[in-house]
Amino acid sequence: MDSQPQLTHVDAAGSARMVDVSAKEISVRSATAAGHVRTTPEVLALLSQGGLPKGDALGVARLAGIMAAKRTPDLVPLCHPIAIHGVAVEVTPADDRVEISATVRTADRTGVEMEALTCVAVAGLALIDMIKAVDPGASIENVRVLRKEGGKTGLWSRER
Amino acid sequence: MDSQPQLTHVDAAGSARMVDVSAKEISVRSATAAGHVRTTPEVLALLSQGGLPKGDALGVARLAGIMAAKRTPDLVPLCHPIAIHGVAVEVTPADDRVEISATVRTADRTGVEMEALTCVAVAGLALIDMIKAVDPGASIENVRVLRKEGGKTGLWSRER
Amino acid sequence: MDSQPQLTHVDAAGSARMVDVSAKEISVRSATAAGHVRTTPEVLALLSQGGLPKGDALGVARLAGIMAAKRTPDLVPLCHPIAIHGVAVEVTPADDRVEISATVRTADRTGVEMEALTCVAVAGLALIDMIKAVDPGASIENVRVLRKEGGKTGLWSRER
Amino acid sequence: MDSQPQLTHVDAAGSARMVDVSAKEISVRSATAAGHVRTTPEVLALLSQGGLPKGDALGVARLAGIMAAKRTPDLVPLCHPIAIHGVAVEVTPADDRVEISATVRTADRTGVEMEALTCVAVAGLALIDMIKAVDPGASIENVRVLRKEGGKTGLWSRER
Amino acid sequence: MDSQPQLTHVDAAGSARMVDVSAKEISVRSATAAGHVRTTPEVLALLSQGGLPKGDALGVARLAGIMAAKRTPDLVPLCHPIAIHGVAVEVTPADDRVEISATVRTADRTGVEMEALTCVAVAGLALIDMIKAVDPGASIENVRVLRKEGGKTGLWSRER
Amino acid sequence: MDSQPQLTHVDAAGSARMVDVSAKEISVRSATAAGHVRTTPEVLALLSQGGLPKGDALGVARLAGIMAAKRTPDLVPLCHPIAIHGVAVEVTPADDRVEISATVRTADRTGVEMEALTCVAVAGLALIDMIKAVDPGASIENVRVLRKEGGKTGLWSRER
Repeated sequence: MDSQPQLTHVDAAGSARMVDVSAKEISVRSATAAGHVRTTPEVLALLSQGGLPKGDALGVARLAGIMAAKRTPDLVPLCHPIAIHGVAVEVTPADDRVEISATVRTADRTGVEMEALTCVAVAGLALIDMIKAVDPGASIENVRVLRKEGGKTGLWSRER
Repeated sequence: MDSQPQLTHVDAAGSARMVDVSAKEISVRSATAAGHVRTTPEVLALLSQGGLPKGDALGVARLAGIMAAKRTPDLVPLCHPIAIHGVAVEVTPADDRVEISATVRTADRTGVEMEALTCVAVAGLALIDMIKAVDPGASIENVRVLRKEGGKTGLWSRER
Repeated sequence: MDSQPQLTHVDAAGSARMVDVSAKEISVRSATAAGHVRTTPEVLALLSQGGLPKGDALGVARLAGIMAAKRTPDLVPLCHPIAIHGVAVEVTPADDRVEISATVRTADRTGVEMEALTCVAVAGLALIDMIKAVDPGASIENVRVLRKEGGKTGLWSRER
Repeated sequence: MDSQPQLTHVDAAGSARMVDVSAKEISVRSATAAGHVRTTPEVLALLSQGGLPKGDALGVARLAGIMAAKRTPDLVPLCHPIAIHGVAVEVTPADDRVEISATVRTADRTGVEMEALTCVAVAGLALIDMIKAVDPGASIENVRVLRKEGGKTGLWSRER
Repeated sequence: MDSQPQLTHVDAAGSARMVDVSAKEISVRSATAAGHVRTTPEVLALLSQGGLPKGDALGVARLAGIMAAKRTPDLVPLCHPIAIHGVAVEVTPADDRVEISATVRTADRTGVEMEALTCVAVAGLALIDMIKAVDPGASIENVRVLRKEGGKTGLWSRER
Repeated sequence: MDSQPQLTHVDAAGSARMVDVSAKEISVRSATAAGHVRTTPEVLALLSQGGLPKGDALGVARLAGIMAAKRTPDLVPLCHPIAIHGVAVEVTPADDRVEISATVRTADRTGVEMEALTCVAVAGLALIDMIKAVDPGASIENVRVLRKEGGKTGLWSRER
């Protein structure tokens, strides 16, 4: 029954494997992921001064996300190494949270949703590291793919 | 006013720095973090067969978490390199989610909450990578510190 | 005399270099390597219970091998970075040993035999780490290429 | 029966874990491992000229081994990160083989036999990479611990 | 004549080794290094707006330096892995250059001058990457240790 | 005014990003960079014996440079991961210095000048590490691109 849903990274015996993609086409692919860090008003005030982001604080989170996207295959065991061709990250203080979103683009043989998710998750970790002395209870929330494009499956977009 | 809360990783000018901890005492410290991956009943059924976890699937997430904990200072820019002395991770399928929790222990000069959070977040990423062909909408939720112990500040425990 | 055999990674003066492959064709290539870990009956019994592999034990070795294959250019100084497109590893307890074999596939400009060998060697190291408390004398044996395919040289197969 | 031999890196349920060593004493520890690469007379002649090692060839293997020893916790999933304090590697052409041996020293909480084994195995991989154009059938053989010293268990020495 | 100066990282036969420091005392050590990137007035104007550093540009260089300091033993083959305990980097636009200085602190068995030099050199590389589209001729200059303190040799300070 | 010079790695708001190159052509590209380490006659004598380089000393610097070139995207935050296809490094003792030059080649979507610069800078760091016990004041000087070729911009060559 190959129409039955399957975990693609384990074989019939349950053994992990890296799925062979050498026969897949090179095409332009992109993925957007998002999430947020929930924190206190006190932290949100520290992150902004007169409405402007303060110094390196948000920049550190952005950069951590970009660098982590490049290291996705080192972190996610069965992920293929991919030549990432572009990453944009936004880290935006909002009401009771800091919103994080990332778009990753490539021209390669597999999708980049894991790279986009890794970018968001690690930007969140870096942000928590910056603020944990003031808010030890901050949390990373709702890290998920919003949209992916390209490849055989084409456009997938999250229904809200 | 040094009693005012501050972002410890940026100096007065907003520049990032790695705070000097060379004068802090070596003491046994531990931190526990948790989170979960929200997914579909279909995936949860695939992860268990007859109530037993299937082959490597959950093991891959556990191992990804342990290895990521060791690489925390490579991922989180201002984190100190720490000699991690023990990591235990649990990845447990539940109702509408897979619960992840991790406890990290060390005998060193700073706490290990970032290591525990990184362990949970990356175990979550690895799990999503395993299941994304079946559930492209899975999300990582509520990654936060539950409890930390040791060092000058002693025990901190999350009120829930 | 360019028909004389040469060490390709050192120049005439004996200096190490990474050979230029930018003019080579992209083609599908694969390599299979194998080896084994020699250990005691006691360990082999612990690795299997009622004939079934025990929990994560063999899975850890498999995963370590897959992850190491991706890191080959970080480990082997003059190896080209290669976009690995598929890895399958088998770790199988046998009579007085645990057999390990790995097949790596790519569509790139150079062969993947170093990736396959690295996969087998590191799976062996990870396995020894798991069993060394019970058998401190375990050894890695006979790690070699069995077969490679693709590229200008085409099929090479080991004579037994 | 806790006197029964156990795989230390998996718990009762078979889940992988990094064993907690935070309560172990810091002491000076060392481990020596060895192995060899079996190859052809043609390669052995190329590696030596007038009895002297040729340029960087053996040096590359030595350096690859030293660098890999430092990266052991990145490669071997359940290995503790250890502050390596000294590494000496010998790579010596002999009759039908190149002998490799490595001694690693530390003052830390766990032994360094995995670091010594990793050093030998990766030096062997680097050597094979250097010679594979001339001898595609070279193999890594007999990588094992010869001797370890320090810590609670004290001296262990391999019986030949 | 052991009073004769020697290259400490090669033995009598010229083979590379990582010198054993396991018998050295743990003490607080620090090192300061500096250097600069020479570039055009056009770039210097772009890096500052109204006298203020522009967005992430200088922050990226600072962060690259801090992260590279942590990875020194991965980059410099015979360097010991060291638990870095603090890093401060300054990246300051001046007349015809951007000045870079870094101070690294640790409580460990060997000095941290390589970590400070690596921090400055990689901050310089990251800065050149940011500006190379405008000034392809920018150069890294005069990267050297200014001062080191701690350990058996005590204070060393550069004579100008 | 898109004719105005711009820092390509920061957007209009000053936020760091990895520029999208997925639409750029794959073409053969190369870059040559150079620099030197200034040191004392005493060190230069130690590096050569009877006019010949001594053992591994210069080889370690060469190899460190090659390996660092492969790790450029790990070090330089906004650099694209690139499939490096060839690296040649020369490390040559001269009058009052050790000259270092490196040529990197690829067939990919962006240039390799950062890889060539990283190769030279890290070879310099490794060399300083080898000689610092004899000359603690050695410095890295004049690390810059000499020439780059390929891609849309074609040949760029440094005017002396």
